[in-house]
Amino acid sequence: MAENMSNALGETLALLVEGKKYTAARDVLETMHAADIAAMLEECRAEVVPLLFRLLPKELAADTFVEMGEDQQEILITSFSDSELKEVVDELYVDDAVDIVEEMPANVVRRILRQADPEKRKMINEILKYPEDSAGSIMTTEYVSLRPGMTVEDAIKRIRRTGIDKETINTCYVTSDNRKLLGIVTVRALLLADENATMEEIMTEDVISALTTEDREEVAHNFTKYDLSAMPVVDVENRLVGIVTVDDVMDVLQEETTEDIEKMAAITPLDKPYLKTAVFRMYLSRIPWLLLLMFSATFTGGIITRYENALTNSLLVASIPMLMATGGNCGSQASVTVIRGLSIGEIEFRDVLRVIWKEMRVAILCGVTLAFINFFVLSILVGAEASVAAVICITLLVTVTVAKIVGCVLPMVASKIGFDPAVMASPFITTIIDAVSLMIYVNIAMQIL
Amino acid sequence: MAENMSNALGETLALLVEGKKYTAARDVLETMHAADIAAMLEECRAEVVPLLFRLLPKELAADTFVEMGEDQQEILITSFSDSELKEVVDELYVDDAVDIVEEMPANVVRRILRQADPEKRKMINEILKYPEDSAGSIMTTEYVSLRPGMTVEDAIKRIRRTGIDKETINTCYVTSDNRKLLGIVTVRALLLADENATMEEIMTEDVISALTTEDREEVAHNFTKYDLSAMPVVDVENRLVGIVTVDDVMDVLQEETTEDIEKMAAITPLDKPYLKTAVFRMYLSRIPWLLLLMFSATFTGGIITRYENALTNSLLVASIPMLMATGGNCGSQASVTVIRGLSIGEIEFRDVLRVIWKEMRVAILCGVTLAFINFFVLSILVGAEASVAAVICITLLVTVTVAKIVGCVLPMVASKIGFDPAVMASPFITTIIDAVSLMIYVNIAMQIL
Repeated sequence: MAENMSNALGETLALLVEGKKYTAARDVLETMHAADIAAMLEECRAEVVPLLFRLLPKELAADTFVEMGEDQQEILITSFSDSELKEVVDELYVDDAVDIVEEMPANVVRRILRQADPEKRKMINEILKYPEDSAGSIMTTEYVSLRPGMTVEDAIKRIRRTGIDKETINTCYVTSDNRKLLGIVTVRALLLADENATMEEIMTEDVISALTTEDREEVAHNFTKYDLSAMPVVDVENRLVGIVTVDDVMDVLQEETTEDIEKMAAITPLDKPYLKTAVFRMYLSRIPWLLLLMFSATFTGGIITRYENALTNSLLVASIPMLMATGGNCGSQASVTVIRGLSIGEIEFRDVLRVIWKEMRVAILCGVTLAFINFFVLSILVGAEASVAAVICITLLVTVTVAKIVGCVLPMVASKIGFDPAVMASPFITTIIDAVSLMIYVNIAMQIL
Repeated sequence: MAENMSNALGETLALLVEGKKYTAARDVLETMHAADIAAMLEECRAEVVPLLFRLLPKELAADTFVEMGEDQQEILITSFSDSELKEVVDELYVDDAVDIVEEMPANVVRRILRQADPEKRKMINEILKYPEDSAGSIMTTEYVSLRPGMTVEDAIKRIRRTGIDKETINTCYVTSDNRKLLGIVTVRALLLADENATMEEIMTEDVISALTTEDREEVAHNFTKYDLSAMPVVDVENRLVGIVTVDDVMDVLQEETTEDIEKMAAITPLDKPYLKTAVFRMYLSRIPWLLLLMFSATFTGGIITRYENALTNSLLVASIPMLMATGGNCGSQASVTVIRGLSIGEIEFRDVLRVIWKEMRVAILCGVTLAFINFFVLSILVGAEASVAAVICITLLVTVTVAKIVGCVLPMVASKIGFDPAVMASPFITTIIDAVSLMIYVNIAMQIL
């Protein structure tokens, strides 16, 4: 709803601002959520955006800025005076600032870092040094740390004093003098405990944490597995360096799934939203796979040419698309199911025999059904010779079985040898199955006819 | 790691229990997380599971129970005495209890409900009455409600008194006498505010909430969009009836994505994990689509038979698999990209012209590249006649363009008319494109040759 309205609303606000009715515009903006304001600004004429943005209260301005697309962020930063930029940067959480800095051109980054206060600049640089896709790169360094000897009363006082700048106070971290992570204390535990209890007494010592270098997808899986809302990030000596919060994890999960889906459709993943990606970049992300698959498909054509003699009957030729399509569909059903199972952790490599056994039984059920119905259609309805119908239907049964098995085995083998299983999805498997099923076809045809 | 170890660990624990070394076994179990214990129990011999489960402290037992598969849950419940069952049910959060009740056979459900105390039974029944996939069905009724006149001190007292049973205290809900939702107060706001401030003064009134009947996928999207950790669920009169928490939303997102991916591969979504789904159910979820697509593919075969005269040259016949495969791959690149864009909200129907325009330019770039390279290969390397190579390459260009446009338009139209775009994915589009590209092929062949 909000999105369909954002156009009309944007126009109204633009008119208000151009008529210098700033108070009215601000009143409207203040009732809105950051994500909705950002969506609306995307639709506004470029010259109105900075005018509207300046009307936002400080905190809402920072939240809105984070939600905007990088192009719009860059335009805004360019239109900002240094003091305006400083105001926004001061309000940003460190992890959001890092995300922005990662996307901006070097000159804009220099301006942002110059406006950040020294402590924040240090934190931004700290996070920037971790490899992309690592836990370190998605963490924030703004968390509440407590000491083991503090009482509940001390801890609450500390939260009151420092909590305002922290991304979350729902979980606080108990660290030793040398910053080693000793345990966590939730705000719930704090509120429910006796005022004189110490952190040491009420903390949970058995904490699920991530190493700074751990893959962010692994971190996200542990969030889902253990139902966490924040996770501490530690270095190799178990010193606490930051925390990852659930909102960032949800973004990671969404991005990783999109990447998986793109790979399954033979596209090199792109990191920008569809409508913002340049045509040429989309071309580059698709053409290598198309070329590769085009040349693999010519092998299938080669088989047809080579065994022309076996395919004399025109019904045999006319059935090629049906056989190839059915093989491809069976293969992609199996491969996509297995790839998804691997990616959400339902299947592991050690299950490979169970998976094959299951797919084989499904394949035989599917193959027999398809072959039986097809035989009926061909021999009764179309009136084909029984021997020709038999060739087609036996091929169908064998193709379906081979397709299901290839479809489930390839992604599992890929994951075992450290390849991304998603790359093994439908287009590849279809190409292999096309060639295999055609070979089976001509051989069966030569045997029977 | 935990999963690879769970076998060996399970065996060790089984030996300890069978040797009646209960304390040692309990000490080990207490250091583990619920999700890991559940994974380990899945691998244990059936007779050991209840023995190990009984060693768990109450709260850990309930958490572990929630993480277990439904088959194991059922076995455990059957082995429980009434008082053991009551102990577990008492510790469960209402929304988890509902999830379990939904999966169990009627006689087990009756036993669970009989052991639940009257208030919890009422809450479970309350949630059960909402339609599957609605916000109501994934909410919990255990939240902290506050009154507008309460001071911070009152509120903290109330949380201390009642918070222990609530799923989250991080966000509390301010309601009027007639249960209408007035605003939310985060525990952070509570801790940072003055002790004498009232809820009315510190609450956020502008709250993103969900109607009980709203689709759970829509709820999940709002969580991502607004970075929420909990969302109130209200009835049509804005009375607060429950809350949805972020852990349940992450599960919803994962399930919905899996469903999308399954539909894209022409599979009717299944609600059980792969390894637990019966072979016959998998067969049923796959066979209707295979049949439908098999018969659509025979049309393509029909075109070959009908235009046999146009396809006299054997190179023309041998190129059919390559043309169809490339068309299919181009179509699925476009459709999968658009389906994912629609599902995460990057693309909407009103963008349809921008999407077509973009896909058309990408298609022409891809088509020209593929046609050019193919022409080179066919005429120089294979030594084909220029006219035959031209027919193949012009068809390639046209097919790629048609495939990209069909691939992006169909899912968008589907979403507009209220169909699930994911069903319009590769297999369907491939079938359409196969037929269309073959028609183009024979027509161009008849024109030129």
